[in-house]
Amino acid sequence: MKTLRLALVASVASLALVLPSIALAQTAAPKPPTPGEVTAAKAVAEARDAALADDTVAWDIVEGLTTEVGQRMAGTEAEARARAWAKARLDSLDFKSVRIEPYNMQTWVRGAETAEIVSPFPQKMAITALGRSGATPPEGITAPIAYFPTYADLAAAPAGSLKGKIAFISHNMQPTQDGSGYGFAGPARWTAPALAASKGAIATVIKSVGTDLHRNPHTGNTGWADGQTATAAGALSRPDAENLERMLARGKPVTMKLVLTPRWLGETQSGNVIAEVPGTDPRAGAIVIACHLDSWDLGTGAIDDASGCAIITAAAKRIMAAGGTRHPIRLLWAGAEEVGVFGGAAYGKAHGGEAHVLAMESDFGADRVWRVNFNLADEALKTRVAQALAPLGITRGTGEAHGGADVGAIIEAQQTAVVDLSQDGTHYFDLHHTSDDTLDKIDPADLRQNVAAWVAALMVLGNAPELAPAVAPHGE
Amino acid sequence: MKTLRLALVASVASLALVLPSIALAQTAAPKPPTPGEVTAAKAVAEARDAALADDTVAWDIVEGLTTEVGQRMAGTEAEARARAWAKARLDSLDFKSVRIEPYNMQTWVRGAETAEIVSPFPQKMAITALGRSGATPPEGITAPIAYFPTYADLAAAPAGSLKGKIAFISHNMQPTQDGSGYGFAGPARWTAPALAASKGAIATVIKSVGTDLHRNPHTGNTGWADGQTATAAGALSRPDAENLERMLARGKPVTMKLVLTPRWLGETQSGNVIAEVPGTDPRAGAIVIACHLDSWDLGTGAIDDASGCAIITAAAKRIMAAGGTRHPIRLLWAGAEEVGVFGGAAYGKAHGGEAHVLAMESDFGADRVWRVNFNLADEALKTRVAQALAPLGITRGTGEAHGGADVGAIIEAQQTAVVDLSQDGTHYFDLHHTSDDTLDKIDPADLRQNVAAWVAALMVLGNAPELAPAVAPHGE
Repeated sequence: MKTLRLALVASVASLALVLPSIALAQTAAPKPPTPGEVTAAKAVAEARDAALADDTVAWDIVEGLTTEVGQRMAGTEAEARARAWAKARLDSLDFKSVRIEPYNMQTWVRGAETAEIVSPFPQKMAITALGRSGATPPEGITAPIAYFPTYADLAAAPAGSLKGKIAFISHNMQPTQDGSGYGFAGPARWTAPALAASKGAIATVIKSVGTDLHRNPHTGNTGWADGQTATAAGALSRPDAENLERMLARGKPVTMKLVLTPRWLGETQSGNVIAEVPGTDPRAGAIVIACHLDSWDLGTGAIDDASGCAIITAAAKRIMAAGGTRHPIRLLWAGAEEVGVFGGAAYGKAHGGEAHVLAMESDFGADRVWRVNFNLADEALKTRVAQALAPLGITRGTGEAHGGADVGAIIEAQQTAVVDLSQDGTHYFDLHHTSDDTLDKIDPADLRQNVAAWVAALMVLGNAPELAPAVAPHGE
Repeated sequence: MKTLRLALVASVASLALVLPSIALAQTAAPKPPTPGEVTAAKAVAEARDAALADDTVAWDIVEGLTTEVGQRMAGTEAEARARAWAKARLDSLDFKSVRIEPYNMQTWVRGAETAEIVSPFPQKMAITALGRSGATPPEGITAPIAYFPTYADLAAAPAGSLKGKIAFISHNMQPTQDGSGYGFAGPARWTAPALAASKGAIATVIKSVGTDLHRNPHTGNTGWADGQTATAAGALSRPDAENLERMLARGKPVTMKLVLTPRWLGETQSGNVIAEVPGTDPRAGAIVIACHLDSWDLGTGAIDDASGCAIITAAAKRIMAAGGTRHPIRLLWAGAEEVGVFGGAAYGKAHGGEAHVLAMESDFGADRVWRVNFNLADEALKTRVAQALAPLGITRGTGEAHGGADVGAIIEAQQTAVVDLSQDGTHYFDLHHTSDDTLDKIDPADLRQNVAAWVAALMVLGNAPELAPAVAPHGE
C-alpha cells in the first residue's frame, strides 16, 4: 500500500522534487545486513553478472530445438521428437533424474486452410484455423459475412440472427508491456466462435489476436460449450482483416468462401520432461520452475516457448554448477500447454504428493525481464530478491504473482509461493502463435539478461530460510 | 565534378568548419531571378505545399485498388479487372482520352508450393515459386541439398557437379537507401537457377532476395538461357533459409522435398491504361510519367506499384486542375511490368512515333523522396527543379537519372531527358514481392510528400522552355 501511495505521488509532476527525500527515508529504514548476508549477496551478484556476460547454454537450447526439431505440436510425432531431444540435452547438461513422464491426450491437427472473398471484390485472404476449430466440407462453404467490430457487438446480436452466415469479429488489440492487451482482445479468439455458433453462425473468422501487420495469422485455442458442435473457426491476418473491414465499409454484402479442414487424431501420447537439481537440505520442499516444450505448428516455437525452457535451464545449470541451493530445484519442460495445459495437469496429478515451496514459470518470450512480482508472505525475502534484480534494471511491481499455466495445478493444490519475472511483452504479440515465431526474433543479449535474472532470483530463493510448504501436499 | 569535389571535402571531418563559406560562395553565383521566374516559383511552391498538406487522391487510389482489386497478376483476369478499375478511376478524375491499349503475352501462374526438410531435421519451410519457374511433378522431388553461401560459390562449382541435387544459394542482402543492395543480391534470383541447372541441378532454392525476417518469401522473375529447360526454382523466406544454413552447419547431408507446380496459360491479353493532361502548346513534345498496374500475386501490390500510380496521378490531377503546363503530360499505367515489362515494350512500339521530351517513373514504393537525379543537359533547369524540391528535404544527387522499366523503351528510342525522384528504399525490400505488400505499410504523410515532389518537379519541367525532343521520333 505504501508503494502504491508513492506511485501516486510520483505521478503528480509538480511534487517530483520532493521525491529524493522520500526515497532516502525509504532506503534508510531496513536494518543493516549481517556479514553472512553480505557474503551471500556478493555471491548472487557474481553469479548473476557472469550469466549476463557469457551465458551460451540458453542460446544453444533455443537454437538447437528450433533448428533440429522446429514445430512440435502437442500430441504429434514432432512433440515426441522434441521430448527425446529435450531428454538428451538435459542429460548432457548433467541434470539428475532426467525422465519423460508420458500421458495421453486427444489431439487436434490442422488441415487445409484457405479463405477468399467471392464478391464484390474477389481476392484471397491469409487465414489459419484456431485450435479445436471444427471443419468445413473439403470443398468449403460460401456465405455472407456478418460483421462485428468488437466482441460486445457480437454479444449484442439477437439469438438466431447469424443463421447461415460467417461471423467476422474484428476486435482490435494494441501492444502493452505487461501483456494486458491479451486479456482485452483474447475473448475474440477464446469464446467468440462458440458465441457466434450459438446464434446460428455456420463459421467464424476473427481478426488475429495480435499486434503486427504481417500476413501471418495468429492461431491459438478456441473453446466450445459442453455438447456444442464445433464450427469452423479461423483467424485472418490483421492486414486481411483490415482489408475486409474496408470492403464492408463500402456498404455492399460481402461473401466469403472458407475451407478449413482440421481433424481430431483421437488419443495420442504426449509427455512432460523433468530434471532435477538436488538441494543441500533433504527436508526442504522443492522449487519447481517451468516452461513448455510443445509449440503451435506454424512457427518453430522460438519465443513460445523454447526461450522459456532455455532460460530456466541455463539458470538452473549455473546454480547446479555452483553446488546447488538448500531447496532442490525441479525443471518442468511441460508438454501440451498450448492446446489445453495437459502437461501441467499431469504434473499436478503425478507430483501433488510431494512438498513444493515455490513455483515459477517462463512463458512470455525472450525480451528482457522488466519487473518482479511476488505472491509470498515474507517482506525481507522479497526485498532481498528485488535487490538482487535491481542492477538488471528490474523494478518491483505492485501486483500479485500468478505463476503460469503449467504451474497452475501445483500452485492451486499446495498454495505455494510464487515469483513472477515479467518479460517485456510489447512485441510479444507481434509473433505469438504465428509462423513468424522463429529464432531470428531473439536477441542473445536479452536472453542472457533473462538467465541472469533467473540465476539471481533462484539463488536467493533457493537458499531462503523463509520458504516452507504452505499446506500439506494433497491436503493431507 | 564540382559537386563531387565538395562531397569529398565534406567527408574530411577536420575541414567541416570551412564548409559554410564554400556554400555561401556557391549560392551567390547564379544570377538573380526575373520577376516572371519569381512568380512561377511561387506558384510551384504553393501547389507543392497544398499537395503536401491535403492530398487525398493518391491515398484513395492505393486504398481503392488494393481493396477492390487486390493482387493483379499480369495476363490474368485479375489484371483485366484492374484495368477496368483504372480506366473508371482516371475517367472519374477527368483525365482526357483515357483508354486501354491491349496486347497479348505468354502468361505464367503459380501452382502448389511446399518445401520440407526430410532429413536429418524434418520440418516444413515457407517457399514460393519464382516467376518463370519450371514445375516439379505433382508429387514433388526429393533430393540432397548442394549449398552455396554466395552466388560466386555457385559460379565456381564444376560442370556437372550438381547432378541430381537441389542447389541452395543463400546470397545475403542488406538494406540500402538507394536500393543498390538489389543489384548486389539480385543475381541470386535472376540467374542462379539457370546457372545451377546448367551444372546439373534438378531444382534451385534461394534465400529470398529481401531484407526482412518474416516467413513471407519474396517472389520475382528468374531467367533461362535460350533453349534451356526451366527447372523448379523457389525462394525460401529468410528465416527458413537461415534455419537451413544452421542445419547444413551441423555437417550432415540435408535432404529436401520440394513441390512447385506453376504452369503457363499460353497467350492471354494484358494492356496499358493511358490518360492525358493536355498541354497549352500544341507543338511541345509529351512528358510521359509511368507506373505499373500489375502486381505479383502474393500481396495486394500496395507499394509495388499502386503507390506509384497513385503518386503520379494525384500530381497530374493537381496540375490539370491548375490549367496544365506547356507540355502535355501523359499518364502510363503500364501492364505486365513484373513479368517482363511487356507493357513498357508495347508503349514504346505504339507511341515511338510521337515526340517525347521527358520520361519519369514512380516504382519504388511509398516512402519519401530523398533525392533527385537528372539526365538532362540544361543546368539552369536542373537548378530550378532542385530548388523547387529543396523545401521537402530532397537533395540533389550526383548520379545520373535512369527512369525505370516502363519508360525504358521510349527513353532508348528517343533519348528523352529523364528525371528521377528517388524514394527511400531502406525498407522497400522488406516487402518487395511478398504477401506483406499491403496498404497498411503506407504512411499517408509519406505518400503526400511524394505527390508534392511530383507536383513541384512536373510544374517546373512542364513549363520549361529548355525541353525539346532530343532525336526525331522513330529516328525519322
